[in-house]
Amino acid sequence: MIDSPQNQHVKLFRSLAEAKHRRESGFFALEGRRLIEEALAASAQLVWAAYCPETFLGPEADRLLHSLMTAGVELHEITPRALGAMSHTGTPPGIAAVARIPEAPVVPAEGGWLLGLWEIRDPGNMGSMARIAHAFGAAAVLAIGDCVDFWDPKVVRASVGSVLHVPLLKAAGLSDLRALVGFETPLVAADMAAPLACDAAEYPERSVLLVGSEAHGLPDEALAAAQLLVRIPMPGGAESLNAAVAAGILAFQLSRKLGA
Amino acid sequence: MIDSPQNQHVKLFRSLAEAKHRRESGFFALEGRRLIEEALAASAQLVWAAYCPETFLGPEADRLLHSLMTAGVELHEITPRALGAMSHTGTPPGIAAVARIPEAPVVPAEGGWLLGLWEIRDPGNMGSMARIAHAFGAAAVLAIGDCVDFWDPKVVRASVGSVLHVPLLKAAGLSDLRALVGFETPLVAADMAAPLACDAAEYPERSVLLVGSEAHGLPDEALAAAQLLVRIPMPGGAESLNAAVAAGILAFQLSRKLGA
Repeated sequence: MIDSPQNQHVKLFRSLAEAKHRRESGFFALEGRRLIEEALAASAQLVWAAYCPETFLGPEADRLLHSLMTAGVELHEITPRALGAMSHTGTPPGIAAVARIPEAPVVPAEGGWLLGLWEIRDPGNMGSMARIAHAFGAAAVLAIGDCVDFWDPKVVRASVGSVLHVPLLKAAGLSDLRALVGFETPLVAADMAAPLACDAAEYPERSVLLVGSEAHGLPDEALAAAQLLVRIPMPGGAESLNAAVAAGILAFQLSRKLGA
Repeated sequence: MIDSPQNQHVKLFRSLAEAKHRRESGFFALEGRRLIEEALAASAQLVWAAYCPETFLGPEADRLLHSLMTAGVELHEITPRALGAMSHTGTPPGIAAVARIPEAPVVPAEGGWLLGLWEIRDPGNMGSMARIAHAFGAAAVLAIGDCVDFWDPKVVRASVGSVLHVPLLKAAGLSDLRALVGFETPLVAADMAAPLACDAAEYPERSVLLVGSEAHGLPDEALAAAQLLVRIPMPGGAESLNAAVAAGILAFQLSRKLGA
């Protein structure tokens, strides 16, 4: 039974809140039944899991523990004190696990549109956007420039496990992005000043939908490089939307126009 | 110059993180230039503002201070120490203000659709949803059942000031909601199991768009009472979206279908 806040598993798990420690170890952290179920479903490489026998109870808990054992995942019992000490959430959810960060995939050569996220620093938005990409069938998510890391515990949590399902790539900037996706792949940019409404546009079968942060939007170089600029028509008084909400509306429209 | 963390203004401001203290005082808290500008634009009743002369600088800061003085708002200088002690955000933004909570409005008799939020407890989602209502021209936002308070500092912040612009009402439950909006007003409910896609539906000129929380969705009584059930088609693998993202897509569709 793990009980000490100084236990090596506890210390490793806690350290995974920092990008540096994730990079060094190659691991990321998962908390809660739902995320760990998603990880199993996505065939993520779980290294170990630790659960509180006193609080992680019920048929769903039993099923997950059984699946973890069947999958050969190293299982530890842990006290609420030690789980609380290692948790990245306010309310430790009874079970936590460490998994190996998947190798960076290649850009899928086929299969529709890609979601390009430009300098998204908010982990909640980043996670929501990965979930949006997953929900609307994006072939991959590309984090462009200085984005929050996909494997930050807050991103993983906000994605509700979608980071485990959608190919995730990084591009240093615009030219790196174009090299990655192919120079012939059109860019579609969200721009509040564009004359064309997002539901009036025709979208190419394959494109990168570029979405910027709430504070800065997309930079001029991205707008200039885009083949298609689209706007979300807002008849009310607010001038902008949360970046993930805007990405959701655009991804929905694009997937509908492509006949999905 | 306010410097002590025990100063009465500092203590009042800090206390406004709690619903009980907001209820007792009738005040809510605002932090940062943008929110205070929005409050002035919305003719909110600002009681006092406090700014750091050392850090709240530049032409936009000067303009806001000038507007506050012109509006007759009591202005205090405050040290970074005292501002840090009263801040509800990690990074105190140089200026903060206290405003009077507006009286609960009546439901606007005309003017399109209303956004009904069912037991939304996450302040970030609640604020984003108020912003969505504002952006897509909802006549009011109705918080149904046990929702987080509109005047929670995190809700105000996530709304980027939209809570100051859109009429906000509360309903204890379904029958209270129907009494408030009129029994003849149709309810439109978001339901992942509905056969009808949200962009294939025809919406009544006036309705309440009901959105539930991510964890629980809408309860059976709300689905049963709704005249129209709509689904967001998701061709990908994720089975759900963040509640604010879902509300954004539905509000966008509804406002477009109404020809806005």
